[in-house]
Amino acid sequence: MPKILLAIQGFEPQAWLERFRALSRTKHEVSLWPDVRDASDFDYACAWKAPAGLLAQFPKLKAIFSLGAGVDHLLQDKTLPNVPIARIVDQDLTIRMVGYVVLHAHLHHRQMKLYERQSKERVWIDHNEAPPGAIKVGLMGMGVMGQASAKGLVASGFTVVGWSRSPKKVADVEMFSGDDGLKKFLAQTNILVCLLPLTPETKGILKYDLFKKLAREPIAPVLINAGRGGEQVEADILRALDDGTLGGASLDVFEQEPLPAESPLWGHPKAYITPHNAASSDPRALVANILRQIENFERGKPLENLVDRKLGY
Amino acid sequence: MPKILLAIQGFEPQAWLERFRALSRTKHEVSLWPDVRDASDFDYACAWKAPAGLLAQFPKLKAIFSLGAGVDHLLQDKTLPNVPIARIVDQDLTIRMVGYVVLHAHLHHRQMKLYERQSKERVWIDHNEAPPGAIKVGLMGMGVMGQASAKGLVASGFTVVGWSRSPKKVADVEMFSGDDGLKKFLAQTNILVCLLPLTPETKGILKYDLFKKLAREPIAPVLINAGRGGEQVEADILRALDDGTLGGASLDVFEQEPLPAESPLWGHPKAYITPHNAASSDPRALVANILRQIENFERGKPLENLVDRKLGY
Repeated sequence: MPKILLAIQGFEPQAWLERFRALSRTKHEVSLWPDVRDASDFDYACAWKAPAGLLAQFPKLKAIFSLGAGVDHLLQDKTLPNVPIARIVDQDLTIRMVGYVVLHAHLHHRQMKLYERQSKERVWIDHNEAPPGAIKVGLMGMGVMGQASAKGLVASGFTVVGWSRSPKKVADVEMFSGDDGLKKFLAQTNILVCLLPLTPETKGILKYDLFKKLAREPIAPVLINAGRGGEQVEADILRALDDGTLGGASLDVFEQEPLPAESPLWGHPKAYITPHNAASSDPRALVANILRQIENFERGKPLENLVDRKLGY
Repeated sequence: MPKILLAIQGFEPQAWLERFRALSRTKHEVSLWPDVRDASDFDYACAWKAPAGLLAQFPKLKAIFSLGAGVDHLLQDKTLPNVPIARIVDQDLTIRMVGYVVLHAHLHHRQMKLYERQSKERVWIDHNEAPPGAIKVGLMGMGVMGQASAKGLVASGFTVVGWSRSPKKVADVEMFSGDDGLKKFLAQTNILVCLLPLTPETKGILKYDLFKKLAREPIAPVLINAGRGGEQVEADILRALDDGTLGGASLDVFEQEPLPAESPLWGHPKAYITPHNAASSDPRALVANILRQIENFERGKPLENLVDRKLGY
């Protein structure tokens, strides 16, 4: 009977354990770290922000599953066992992200901060926003979540452009790729949405110089980051919001999480701040996906959404 | 050469006049009421909230065009000449409405008022919202705007149910109709979106008794009204927000517009108030549509989207 280790920090682990046990029944044995007796017993690790060095103590692991979309929390552990790593790709996680992206693109385009102020001040003024088709939402990162977000954005009227590391074709989206394509992509983009994985290449990519390259018509540029906090330079975002380089921002991720109480981003009049819940991992949806993969792997089938350690995602 | 009368109140008329003249060139003569010499000269009226009795003074009108989606502003004029009335149906108007509906459904489902408060108070708490598919958005009014809104909502993850006066089939939407279907529709609906035309049947339909019939799981019910203010009883909405019958509301239309300064809806902590701009009529998009119809009509083709005066839309 395959044994599954859950190594979870940052998420509430009990709901994951219960869900794994409920769905595993007699097929797998599931333990929640640190409540572990014999480390040599475990076949699979399902991890979220496990302490560096922990997984190296389990000598017989066959594969590691990430409980969230990103795997940067695993790859920064230099002692990580050399076994396959699977990212979680699931419709529940994807559609939550689509909702976040679509919501925040409309929030900025429709100037909801302004109308909320007007409501408090009892002011009835229509600011005649451009139609959504006049706004180009630029998606950085065109994996499963990026492509689904593009569909959601197009269905509510936006024009969508996309950027990815390597060339891709995506329906209804003008695509750019690589370093050459980045400048052209930014010059067209009004609302920049970052869904990139955190890798050495993307660390600190969302900085002042990049914001300066965004289109300035028909609206001041907007940054939406639902990727990773390590991709953004928060001092640069604040500077850009204050000097008008950016007209607004929606940040779901931060250099340090939780966002420290002293950060000037909290309550910023031009920013929407959310507690890294754009696409929360919900055990009710994701555990079945992981167990299905384990069962397939045990029957000799390959794992889905394997991570390329060199690329970092 | 056909002569076109613009009779506009409530919109800024100059932009309409300029757009009509720019696109008409030498093909039509366009006049802006009250700058009119001989009333017997005019073939077409394009109207928005023209004073009651005005259009009766133009004896040779062949048709009347409404400059916005609703025609209640025309039909309440008991002296309206007995000529065809065309509603405006245009992709620009439609997609603006879709954006409004999708934005406000997500705003409530994702509890953005709560996260905005948390941001001001520097609080990092994730409230673990249900996935959007667990939320049923119920659309009342399944015309062009309702059906496009359904598509946009489905594309960002919501489950959609619909209600219309007469039976209809709509892809991806469980449909209800008539008085019998209304109760079943409401019992399933978490977020109620009203896009109905204002008619004697729909006047005051959004009242306390109706709110009581909405589903209460997994979220407290929400009202979004982008139809007409005459459809809502604002005293009932306030009572329902205050006693928890409604968890939130987004109102774009009001019993009296502009919303009077003394209304307790302004700045209400559970409500989003916008100045009747969910789907603003943009002359840049709509004038070409109307001129195309006039040219077709002059060539003997029928008008599109004719109003049934008995039904009131």
